[in-house]
Amino acid sequence: MSPAADSPQNAPRYVYLFDEVDLAESRVGGDWDAVRALLGGKGANLADMTRLGTPVPPGFTVTTEGCNAFLAGGQEFPPGLWEQQLACLEAIEKATGRRFGDPGEPLLLSCRSGSKFSMPGMMDTVLNLGLDAEVAEGMVARGDDPRFVYDLYRRLVQMFGSVVQEIPDHVFEIVIEKRREEAGVNTDTELSGDDWRDVTARFHEIVRNYTGEEFPSDPLEQLRLATEAVFRSWNGRRAIDYRNAAGIAHDLGTAVNVQTMVFGNMGEGSATGVFMSRNASTGEPELEGDFLMNAQGEDVVAGIRATQPLQELEGELPEAYRQLAEIAGRLESHYRNMQDMEFTVERGRLWLLQTRDGKRTAQAEVRIAVDMAEEGLISREEAVLRVQPDQVDFFLHPQLEAEAMKSQKAIATGLNVSPGAAVGIIAFDADTAERWSKEGKDVIMVRPETKPDDVHGMLAAQGILTERGGRTSHAALVARQFGKPAVVGVAELHVDVEQREMSVGEDVLKEGDWLSLDGTHGTVYAGQLPTVVPDLKNPYLLKVLSWADEFRRLGIRANADYEQDANRALINGAEGIGLCRTEHMFFDPERLGTVQRMILAKLPSERQDAIAELLPMQRDDFASLFRAMDGLPVIIRLLDPPLHEFLPSYDELIQDLADLKVQLQHMHTMSEIDEALDEIRTKQDFLERVKALRESNPMLGTRGVRLGIQIPELTRMQVRAIIEAACQCVREGIDVKPEVMIPLTAHVNELEQQREALEEEARAVLEEQHLQVPYRFGTMIEVPRAALTADQLARTAEFFSFGTNDLTQTTFGISRDDAESGFLLQYIKEGILPANPFTTIDPDGVGKLIETAIALGRSVRPDLPVGICGEHGGDPESIALCHRLGLDYVSCSPFRVPIARLAAAHAALTSEGE
Amino acid sequence: MSPAADSPQNAPRYVYLFDEVDLAESRVGGDWDAVRALLGGKGANLADMTRLGTPVPPGFTVTTEGCNAFLAGGQEFPPGLWEQQLACLEAIEKATGRRFGDPGEPLLLSCRSGSKFSMPGMMDTVLNLGLDAEVAEGMVARGDDPRFVYDLYRRLVQMFGSVVQEIPDHVFEIVIEKRREEAGVNTDTELSGDDWRDVTARFHEIVRNYTGEEFPSDPLEQLRLATEAVFRSWNGRRAIDYRNAAGIAHDLGTAVNVQTMVFGNMGEGSATGVFMSRNASTGEPELEGDFLMNAQGEDVVAGIRATQPLQELEGELPEAYRQLAEIAGRLESHYRNMQDMEFTVERGRLWLLQTRDGKRTAQAEVRIAVDMAEEGLISREEAVLRVQPDQVDFFLHPQLEAEAMKSQKAIATGLNVSPGAAVGIIAFDADTAERWSKEGKDVIMVRPETKPDDVHGMLAAQGILTERGGRTSHAALVARQFGKPAVVGVAELHVDVEQREMSVGEDVLKEGDWLSLDGTHGTVYAGQLPTVVPDLKNPYLLKVLSWADEFRRLGIRANADYEQDANRALINGAEGIGLCRTEHMFFDPERLGTVQRMILAKLPSERQDAIAELLPMQRDDFASLFRAMDGLPVIIRLLDPPLHEFLPSYDELIQDLADLKVQLQHMHTMSEIDEALDEIRTKQDFLERVKALRESNPMLGTRGVRLGIQIPELTRMQVRAIIEAACQCVREGIDVKPEVMIPLTAHVNELEQQREALEEEARAVLEEQHLQVPYRFGTMIEVPRAALTADQLARTAEFFSFGTNDLTQTTFGISRDDAESGFLLQYIKEGILPANPFTTIDPDGVGKLIETAIALGRSVRPDLPVGICGEHGGDPESIALCHRLGLDYVSCSPFRVPIARLAAAHAALTSEGE
Repeated sequence: MSPAADSPQNAPRYVYLFDEVDLAESRVGGDWDAVRALLGGKGANLADMTRLGTPVPPGFTVTTEGCNAFLAGGQEFPPGLWEQQLACLEAIEKATGRRFGDPGEPLLLSCRSGSKFSMPGMMDTVLNLGLDAEVAEGMVARGDDPRFVYDLYRRLVQMFGSVVQEIPDHVFEIVIEKRREEAGVNTDTELSGDDWRDVTARFHEIVRNYTGEEFPSDPLEQLRLATEAVFRSWNGRRAIDYRNAAGIAHDLGTAVNVQTMVFGNMGEGSATGVFMSRNASTGEPELEGDFLMNAQGEDVVAGIRATQPLQELEGELPEAYRQLAEIAGRLESHYRNMQDMEFTVERGRLWLLQTRDGKRTAQAEVRIAVDMAEEGLISREEAVLRVQPDQVDFFLHPQLEAEAMKSQKAIATGLNVSPGAAVGIIAFDADTAERWSKEGKDVIMVRPETKPDDVHGMLAAQGILTERGGRTSHAALVARQFGKPAVVGVAELHVDVEQREMSVGEDVLKEGDWLSLDGTHGTVYAGQLPTVVPDLKNPYLLKVLSWADEFRRLGIRANADYEQDANRALINGAEGIGLCRTEHMFFDPERLGTVQRMILAKLPSERQDAIAELLPMQRDDFASLFRAMDGLPVIIRLLDPPLHEFLPSYDELIQDLADLKVQLQHMHTMSEIDEALDEIRTKQDFLERVKALRESNPMLGTRGVRLGIQIPELTRMQVRAIIEAACQCVREGIDVKPEVMIPLTAHVNELEQQREALEEEARAVLEEQHLQVPYRFGTMIEVPRAALTADQLARTAEFFSFGTNDLTQTTFGISRDDAESGFLLQYIKEGILPANPFTTIDPDGVGKLIETAIALGRSVRPDLPVGICGEHGGDPESIALCHRLGLDYVSCSPFRVPIARLAAAHAALTSEGE
Repeated sequence: MSPAADSPQNAPRYVYLFDEVDLAESRVGGDWDAVRALLGGKGANLADMTRLGTPVPPGFTVTTEGCNAFLAGGQEFPPGLWEQQLACLEAIEKATGRRFGDPGEPLLLSCRSGSKFSMPGMMDTVLNLGLDAEVAEGMVARGDDPRFVYDLYRRLVQMFGSVVQEIPDHVFEIVIEKRREEAGVNTDTELSGDDWRDVTARFHEIVRNYTGEEFPSDPLEQLRLATEAVFRSWNGRRAIDYRNAAGIAHDLGTAVNVQTMVFGNMGEGSATGVFMSRNASTGEPELEGDFLMNAQGEDVVAGIRATQPLQELEGELPEAYRQLAEIAGRLESHYRNMQDMEFTVERGRLWLLQTRDGKRTAQAEVRIAVDMAEEGLISREEAVLRVQPDQVDFFLHPQLEAEAMKSQKAIATGLNVSPGAAVGIIAFDADTAERWSKEGKDVIMVRPETKPDDVHGMLAAQGILTERGGRTSHAALVARQFGKPAVVGVAELHVDVEQREMSVGEDVLKEGDWLSLDGTHGTVYAGQLPTVVPDLKNPYLLKVLSWADEFRRLGIRANADYEQDANRALINGAEGIGLCRTEHMFFDPERLGTVQRMILAKLPSERQDAIAELLPMQRDDFASLFRAMDGLPVIIRLLDPPLHEFLPSYDELIQDLADLKVQLQHMHTMSEIDEALDEIRTKQDFLERVKALRESNPMLGTRGVRLGIQIPELTRMQVRAIIEAACQCVREGIDVKPEVMIPLTAHVNELEQQREALEEEARAVLEEQHLQVPYRFGTMIEVPRAALTADQLARTAEFFSFGTNDLTQTTFGISRDDAESGFLLQYIKEGILPANPFTTIDPDGVGKLIETAIALGRSVRPDLPVGICGEHGGDPESIALCHRLGLDYVSCSPFRVPIARLAAAHAALTSEGE
């Protein structure tokens, strides 16, 4: 800023007319992203539309720089800002031939927020600026319907009162309600001009009583105060919450768009509506929207009046409809994306009030990306990049079980605005929903309609149900954006928040009752229905994923322990099993007894017997995996968890024993007592062993390779089972690729000792079977020392797989079990950690170790295959890191395989230098 | 090896005459260490002594290469070895004018082991080779005393039988015992020539019956078999045990020394003995040893006959004594070290049989190093390097409390062969001692005398007590070497191993009874006496340490929590406090109640009250440390352990509650019941909080900085206490250097958040007090992530201190609490880990992280002070690593400060390029 910047004349440019977009663009170097940052998304697009010749009511934008200067400068306009607004106002007056505050030809203005990224409904808006008693009378005198004029006027006072003067909105609503009662009518539209005049007078009174001052009749003061209020709303609680949830930076600031008011409520030839250039739920190439004849725009969005579908506009106002279709096509081509537009028809003349990239369901996103690529509007790479990996998750969302839906009657049906199933207990307000969710409960948030204040509850809920609202209502938009199943606009539903109950016909449900939603079909069920996760059958998704497969470099494998997991993994596109956790097989109730016998064995022979019993079971386990994965690699990790996990818990045993001893005191027959004593002895035996196996930090205890070294016969059995299963499958004609993985290695000697013993067993089996089966031995890298000495390990290990869960625990010194319900919550909330390191790999610490380990490992064994098999393997951000670090594959839950495929393609397409 | 190496003519040289040392030396390039490796220590020194003109009986050495070739080649002599022995034998025959196996002028030979490093008594020896019936008769015919001749002969058969033919030695001893009974005499010396002839005949019979073969009468076969037996003894169990304990490599092999026998048992003019050039217990510059007139050498070492102190030799054989003194001086000058020599006087002629660097107590080591440096024999650097850091430990060994020794009468007194106090329960054999020790018991091993088979028990014991044995007995040598307090040769002691009891006069003690030894004074006490750790007052040690201080680069600080720790640290030479653990102050019984109130507080105000109560206590704690450390830095670590550590254990509470509930059933009066219910409620309150605080892996849980972030008022209080204490001390004229250390940092944001809050508190105190006190904020580096992001941390932290205990736990993923009583034992035993990483820093993993952290930290803050405050700070090997890695200081227990000073000097003196 120059030294003279304090004087208005030398101030930076804070305000741009809509038709000055070239000026703004050249100021920021022609970068459209920078224009959006400066003018906000809405302002930039209004200006851009103006440049494109779209009919946009004249107006101007106060920049985000202006907002930030205001917020940083003690909530005072920076020098020059107001003067620039006045100059632009003059330009609008010239363009429209109207004058701000002139009762003869009055110019009315809207004042709206608009930040770089859309935050629907999160910030403030004031309409109809420029009205006062004199202007209103002037308009009536000029011939405008008093009902129309005083409805405008009362809206100005109401919005100004609630937004600028922070008067609770329901105070105003009660006045209207009372007036309706007095007039004996049901809807606002039935109120007369006199009614509205009276309401307006009462609103003035409310303002006077609440603030101690008169409602400002000076239009310029209205504009100034409204601009300030919009600036301030950037830091309102709900805006901050929204940005936290959506990952939007807090220092962007909002622009303010001041625009000539046009009216959809000027009688029969007028209308207002919102629409998308394609169907936002399904992605089908058709206009989709809602409108109201003779209404103000916010009536459509608020979902208070029942809207008409856009297609019906063709009958009502055919020329406007034709223009809309033409404009939608033009804007879509220009922005190369599906557009979400607002329009108003004022006495037959069409005005576009906004366009922006339309929010859409994941399903629509996928279809639109594929369609646009096939229409030649975007490239396949762009199509792949358009679909966010998390959106794929949506296709994998649970659905209500088909059987259950057949047998159970839906209690209600509404608009299917956000697909997927949600099952939970009913909560009637956002705070309750949030609190219960924190307690680990699944919650369905049920509201008459949702407002921006409700967002924290919606985020916490499994699903959302509202009585009112359309496809573009607040509830619908937010639900879709955050992938929450939602059903809205359920006419037969009555929600009584006061009584904490909802009713549909005769059915009454209380807060805390179970409810099931099918957001895909818009149906609502009482009770807790079972859910299923569907296969991937959407043809558009399959196409996007197949394109993604062409672009990605990372291989995608799945973590699968059972045959059905392996099958699902294959269907979802996995290229092998990156992790089979053999302990999951041990927890099978049929086997647990044998496993416990092995652990409790006092003699080596007893232990040997139990292990021998496990052999055929494990062999069958592995054979079924090999069959499913014919031709693909299967990495089997040897037993990992501490043995005490297979026994009852210490606390439980202590409690049981204490209880038994108390019971014993009340026993009188010998047989009862004998039985009790027997049970006590058995429990004591368990307790003794549990005590011996108990560790103060089991995460860092006798598990992984340490177990294998302590009980070599156990891991030998596992290797025998693997190789025997492989031989069996080879004889069946299956192409088997077993890889044996040793967990928790910290020192190369552990690996050498185990590999020697296990190779011996493997060779013995192959000799017995007179077969050759190729197999590999590799190691997990899940403690820092393994990463730091990876060159030593790579001399023995034929592959590496990063266990990033444990590696994160040891690198941070954080026990996940404890921390995620403890201090880690605080850390993430307060931003002490930028992200949960168990969700997204910490690049500076854990990532650094991975990088080191790969470099060291490949220095010894240049073709060392390296993968990751922690939960991070399904996290897009972590996958991008894995791509950058040069891993060969990621392995994740079968359910996340499609997400990983897409994320890997994103990583390849966006990483620099590739 | 050349292609023709298989033929004896082309074989490498395996055998060297003692006077061929120049040849051996030039073969290995003139390096004396290599000569010792080739010829063994004993062989090399015999050859060296021969070169120095010392009277050494002629002989030759079979090299360690010969031994290794034999052991590697299926226990067969490599080609050429035997032929070379025969050639050397011929040379000896020429030199002595005697012939091997010639009855007329018989040459008798000894065959002894001798590896590079001395392993006293661990391998085999056979004496008097060359005797058979004919030679014996020839000697008698020649005029030798039949008693002498047949004593030699029976010794040959006995030693050959037990060593070569592996016949249990006590079988032979029983024959002699029986013969003594038959002859009605008490000692072997009273037996006649006929007795010995008869004993010899019976020994032949034993050999015949045991082996099925005749004792070999061919002297060459005797020599060959004896050589083989010595080779084999390298891999005997006790040799392997010894090497494991002493850290000697297993692939060195032993040489075999074949030497002309000389006899100290040829009548009045003959004697034999062992002696040191300085006193091996105290280091005083005087000859010290034992001898026997008219005896064989092993009688002295075995401690069976009561020996005479060396000084008495001057009266018996003045010329020999004079020569000994002269030779001792010459050898000491040559070897620049105190010598341990064996000699024999055969009919007035003195022969030296061995010299080697003498084993000595730590006390003697220190004094000799200082004396030799002041005599100009070695440099001060050498003197410092001569004293091993672990030897300093000896000076810090516990001693029996002076008061207790005054009030309690010693039950016996013996030779004070290895100083320090030992208190433990009596074990009468090595296996029992070892087993009990593994169970965590302190054990005193009590034996009639010790043998090499007993070493594992001696290592496991706290101290050693024997009935028999002298200062150079096996028990004494081993005890000194391993720093075990020992009292030997307690004449009034009778040990009855069969009955598992020992008696001293009227006192009878059973196995398992408590016993206390004072190895410093040679006294024995019944019962468990209290011990104290003495201050460092030994003037020689103080001198060595002051020299060490000149040479070291590393600073030495102490970990001290209390004033008395700080004082001890200062006395021991600490240059500051590297770690004050504030939690130790919290555990103080007087404060624990307040601490528990703080933890259990339900209201913030209750918590605040409890914290406020702790403030003055902590202030006093810190003030007393600052006073003690006037002018030196004091690093205070903020509260570290998880809060549940301050509460009763969960198990305990569960058990207590169960007990109380059972008790309740037997109560009848209302007041009893009320009281019980009260107690139950209190315990329930505790339990609830303990449950809430309970973590599955507390090591990785809510502790360290995580606590500070969770309960900011707690760490604020600590900082307030530190700065208030500092102000108070400044007013008293004390030079205060407080440094505040934040524990368990994993992310720079933790540090920033805490530092900001704590600096605020510190500034507030200084403002209140109107004082300026310089202080620093720093961080522990104890999780891998801290090390890996040390550049980020160093922007906020003003110093680093490595907490290598936790860093080792997290780097390895090993919980020390669990592992050191679990799998880690197996790992160390089986060599899976080369050392216990909690004793010695793992250089490849943990060391690598330290290196990384220092480099990153100093890249941002070049003058960053870096230290270590884990237990490793007192471990010499770890200190050497710290020196190499460029740390500024190590901090350790006050008791280990002197050790650390010396180890730091060693590191500086031995590190390359400095």
